[in-house]
Amino acid sequence: MSGLTGEHFWAGERHRGSGQPFAAVEAATGKKQQPIYRDATADEVDAAVQAAARAAAPFAAMVPADRAAFLRRIADEMLELGDALLACAQSETALPVPRLQMERGRTMNQLRLFADLVEQGSWVDARIDRAQPDREPMPKPDLRAMLVPLGPVAVFGASNFPLAYSVAGGDTASALAAGCPVVIKGHPAHPGTSELVAGAVVRAAAATGAPAGVFGMVHGRGHEPGRCLVEHPEVTAVGFTGSAVGGQALVRLAAMRPRPIPVFAEMGSVNPVFVLPGAMAERSAAIAEALAASVTLGTGQFCTCPGMVMHDASAAGESFVTELSDRLAAAAAGVMVHPQLVTNYRGAVAQVQGLSDVVSRATGSDYDEQSATTAEARLFTADVSAVIEQDRLREELFGPAVVAVRYGSGSELLEVARCLDGHLTATIHGTDADLQEHAELVALLQSKVGRLLFGGVPTGVEVCASMQHGGPWPASSDSRFTAVGPRAILRWARPVCLQNAPTEQLPAALRDDNPMGLWRTVDGVHDRH
Amino acid sequence: MSGLTGEHFWAGERHRGSGQPFAAVEAATGKKQQPIYRDATADEVDAAVQAAARAAAPFAAMVPADRAAFLRRIADEMLELGDALLACAQSETALPVPRLQMERGRTMNQLRLFADLVEQGSWVDARIDRAQPDREPMPKPDLRAMLVPLGPVAVFGASNFPLAYSVAGGDTASALAAGCPVVIKGHPAHPGTSELVAGAVVRAAAATGAPAGVFGMVHGRGHEPGRCLVEHPEVTAVGFTGSAVGGQALVRLAAMRPRPIPVFAEMGSVNPVFVLPGAMAERSAAIAEALAASVTLGTGQFCTCPGMVMHDASAAGESFVTELSDRLAAAAAGVMVHPQLVTNYRGAVAQVQGLSDVVSRATGSDYDEQSATTAEARLFTADVSAVIEQDRLREELFGPAVVAVRYGSGSELLEVARCLDGHLTATIHGTDADLQEHAELVALLQSKVGRLLFGGVPTGVEVCASMQHGGPWPASSDSRFTAVGPRAILRWARPVCLQNAPTEQLPAALRDDNPMGLWRTVDGVHDRH
Repeated sequence: MSGLTGEHFWAGERHRGSGQPFAAVEAATGKKQQPIYRDATADEVDAAVQAAARAAAPFAAMVPADRAAFLRRIADEMLELGDALLACAQSETALPVPRLQMERGRTMNQLRLFADLVEQGSWVDARIDRAQPDREPMPKPDLRAMLVPLGPVAVFGASNFPLAYSVAGGDTASALAAGCPVVIKGHPAHPGTSELVAGAVVRAAAATGAPAGVFGMVHGRGHEPGRCLVEHPEVTAVGFTGSAVGGQALVRLAAMRPRPIPVFAEMGSVNPVFVLPGAMAERSAAIAEALAASVTLGTGQFCTCPGMVMHDASAAGESFVTELSDRLAAAAAGVMVHPQLVTNYRGAVAQVQGLSDVVSRATGSDYDEQSATTAEARLFTADVSAVIEQDRLREELFGPAVVAVRYGSGSELLEVARCLDGHLTATIHGTDADLQEHAELVALLQSKVGRLLFGGVPTGVEVCASMQHGGPWPASSDSRFTAVGPRAILRWARPVCLQNAPTEQLPAALRDDNPMGLWRTVDGVHDRH
Repeated sequence: MSGLTGEHFWAGERHRGSGQPFAAVEAATGKKQQPIYRDATADEVDAAVQAAARAAAPFAAMVPADRAAFLRRIADEMLELGDALLACAQSETALPVPRLQMERGRTMNQLRLFADLVEQGSWVDARIDRAQPDREPMPKPDLRAMLVPLGPVAVFGASNFPLAYSVAGGDTASALAAGCPVVIKGHPAHPGTSELVAGAVVRAAAATGAPAGVFGMVHGRGHEPGRCLVEHPEVTAVGFTGSAVGGQALVRLAAMRPRPIPVFAEMGSVNPVFVLPGAMAERSAAIAEALAASVTLGTGQFCTCPGMVMHDASAAGESFVTELSDRLAAAAAGVMVHPQLVTNYRGAVAQVQGLSDVVSRATGSDYDEQSATTAEARLFTADVSAVIEQDRLREELFGPAVVAVRYGSGSELLEVARCLDGHLTATIHGTDADLQEHAELVALLQSKVGRLLFGGVPTGVEVCASMQHGGPWPASSDSRFTAVGPRAILRWARPVCLQNAPTEQLPAALRDDNPMGLWRTVDGVHDRH
C-alpha cells in the first residue's frame, strides 16, 4: 500500500519501531504485503504512554466545545482519506467496499455522537448540595460533584471492525470524549488501515489544539506490546474488543497490577435464539430465513452473530430446521478478515463435530476445505441434554455456524436457559400467548444478557442512548457498562466532589449560574436552570 | 449479652453453625464474652448464598414501593431494638453511646434515603429510542433500556462503623435498594451487634413480603468464610469496607474466579492536608486546632482521618506545628473498637518511628504502653524528601496519628503531591491568592482523590447526592463508584436493553405512559412526561 511507513505514533509524531517485524496479510489471498511493521518494544510503549500521561491534565482542561471540535475533526480527516482508506481496509480484511463505506459512516457518526454529548455536557452528572451553615447539630458544607476523566486509556481494537472498533472506533471516541488520552494497540490484521486512521487522528489533534500526546498508536502482533500497555503504571483503564481468551487474559493482568485498573472487555457471545411453539407454528419459514441471513452476515464475524437456536419438536419445528439447513447449505462461503480466523473456525468446527450427540446437518455448498481464507456456513443439530452436558456447545464458535437445539418441553427450555453463561443478546420469537406461558424464561433470559430481542435477529447494533452492548461474563468483563452508545463514556470517568470550593475554583458545570445549561441535581431537584 | 444465640441467618431463619468457635471481645477490657460464635463453614456459606440466589428473581420483581417499604421497615426494626442494640455495640466496640446513637440515626437515614430513591425511581436511568419503521437503509427497532439488579451481593462490614457500615449499613442498604439479595459476613469485632441487626432485617423482610432469602448473615473471624463467599458462583458483586490488605486480597480473589465479579472495596486513606503559606499566616492556630480534633475524633478510626499535613517553614508554620503538638500531647487516649487495632497501631507507630529523618514530636500525655485497648495521639514530623523516599510515610496509619511534613517551596509541594497514591480526600487550606498561585497543585490533587476540600477537615462525610466516598487506588478499588450517597446504588446494577418488546412485556419504567413519572431520555429528549 503506497504511502504507508509501518511506523508507530506518539506525541504527535511518527516513530520508526525497532521490535520484531511482521507484515500485513491480504485477507483474500493470504499474501504478505509491504511495508514491514514492527511490534512495539517496552520502551516504545513507554514513550507512547508517557506522552499520553503528560497530555492528561491539559486534555482534561480542554473546554467541551474544543474537545467536541477535535472529535468532529477526526471524522472529517477520516473522510478526507477517501478511497485510499477503503482500499487498504478492503485489502487487509476482505470486507466488501460497500460494507466498509457503511462502517466508515458509522465510525464518523460515533465520533459526532460523542462530540454532541460532550458539547451538550449533561453527561458529567453534575450534582450540587448547597451549604446549610445553620444546620444542627453540625453545619452542612457546600458539596458539588461531577464526572472527570480517569487518565490515559489503553485500547485494543477488534479485527472484525477495522474502522468502527479499531483506531478511531467506539472505545477511542468515548475515551477521548471523556477527556482521556488514548494509546491504542493497532490490530495486526489491519496495520495499514490503523496507520492511515492514526494519521487522521494526529492531524485532527494538531488542527484543533489538542495536546500532542492525546493519542498514540503502537503496532503489535505478539502479546508483549499489549502486556506492556496494560501493565504500564500511567495507564488508568483498558478497552478491549475481541476473543474471550484475549479479554480474560487482560482482565486478570490488570487485576494483578500493583495498582489494579478497570478493564472493559467485550468478548462476544453465542447470542442464543429461542423460537417458542406458537411463533414456530405461525412463521417458521420466515424465522429460518432471517436467521440464516443473520448467521452468514459478514461471514458470521459479528459479536452478535446468533450461534444457537432452540426449536420445538413439532412438525413446524422440523420444517424450520429443514428450511434453515437448506438456506445455510446454499449460502456462499465468505472470506474472513484474517486467515487465522479461518484456522480458528476450522478447529472449532472440528471440536463441535467431535462432540457426542451432535449432528452435522448442513455445510455451505461451495465449501472448499483447501481454502485458507474462506469460511463456509455450518448447521449442527443437537438436543437439550447434549447442550447441558457439553460446555463447548454453549461457547462461541466465531464464524457462520449455528447449532439448532431441539427441546421437548417448556421445562427443558428453562433447563437449557439456566445453564447458559452471560451473552450480549438473546432473542425470543413468541406470540403473546407464548410469552405469557414462558414468562419465567423471559425473566431468566433478562438476567443473562445485555439486550433481549422480541423477534428479529441480534445482528445490527443501533448506536443510540438505550443500546446496551455488554452482558454478564463472559460476554463482557463488566456488565455495568456498554461498548456501544453514549453510555460507553461512563467507562472512562469518575466522580470528583469539591467541598466548600470558592466560586472561582469551580468548573463551569458546577457554578451556580449553570452557564452551560446542563441537567443537574441541585439540592435534590433535577432540572437545567 | 442476653438473648444472643451466636447463630447465622439465612432463608429467613437462624442456623446454628458448626465451624471454628470464637468469642466477642469487650473492647474496653479485652475480655471475652458470651455466647460462642462460629466461623461459617463452606456448606453454611453455600446455604446462605443459595437462598439469596433463589430470592434474586422474586426480589428483583418486587415493585419499587414494596422494596422501599422493606428498607424503611429495617430502619424501624433497628430503632425497635432500642437500648439493647446500643449497649451491645458499646460493649463490643467501646464507641460512646452518643456516637452510637448518631450512627444509628445515620444508618436509618441511609436506609430511608435509598427507600426514597427507589420509590421515586429515576435512578434506573430509563432510556427509550422508539422505532422508525421507515428509516433507510434499514428500519430502526424500538429499543428501551433501564438498570436492573446484578444478583446476590456479598458484603463485608467495617469494624469502625458497627451500624452504618455493617450488617444494615450503606453497602447493604444500597444493594437491597438496587434489588440485589445480600449475604453479609459479619465483622468478628461486633458479632452480637451483627446478630441483633440481622434479626431486625429478617423481621423487616418477613413483615413486608420480601422473599426470605433476600438477606443472610454469616459469622466469620478467619479468612475462609469470606473466601467462600467471594468465590461462590452465585455471588455477582462484592462490597467491602476495611483495610487495604483485606480489600486488595478480595479484589484479586474476585478477578481470579472462573467468572470474575466486580468488587467495590473502600480501603481508607491518608487524606493529606495542604496548608498554603497565606492561609498559614492568617490562621495557623485555628487550622491546628481543627486538625488536632479531626485526627483524634473517634480515636482516629475514620477512613477520612487526616494522616499527613504539609506546612511551610515560616514562623507561622513552626507555630502551627507547636500548636498541633501541644493539642495532640494534651489529647486523651481512646479505646479502639477492637484490641487487634491497638496492636496494629502500635506496630505501625513503631515502623514510622524507625524511619529515617522522622521525629516523634508529640505523644498523648496519658499514653499507657501497657494498655491493650487504648491508642494515644501521635505527631511525627518529617521533611518532603523523607516522604518521597519512604513509602511507609505515605500509607495509612490507622489511628490518631498525623505526620507534619515541612515543605520549602511550591515545587517541593508539587513534588510530594505527585508521589501520593490515590486517597479518599485531600484538603487545601489557602487564601484566594494561595489557590491562584498553586493552581497546578489544586488540579493535581483533583486527579488523586474522590473529594477535595477547600478548608475544613476531611472527617464528617455527608450522605447526599454529590458525596464521593471512593478515590483512585488504593483508596478504593474502583474510583468510578462511591460507597456513600445515592450514587452508591450504581455499584449493584447494570443496564438491560429490550428490543421490540410488546407493551405488556415492558416494566413500568419503560412504558410509553411513564406511570411512575420518571425522569427518562426518550428519543434523545430528557424529561419526565
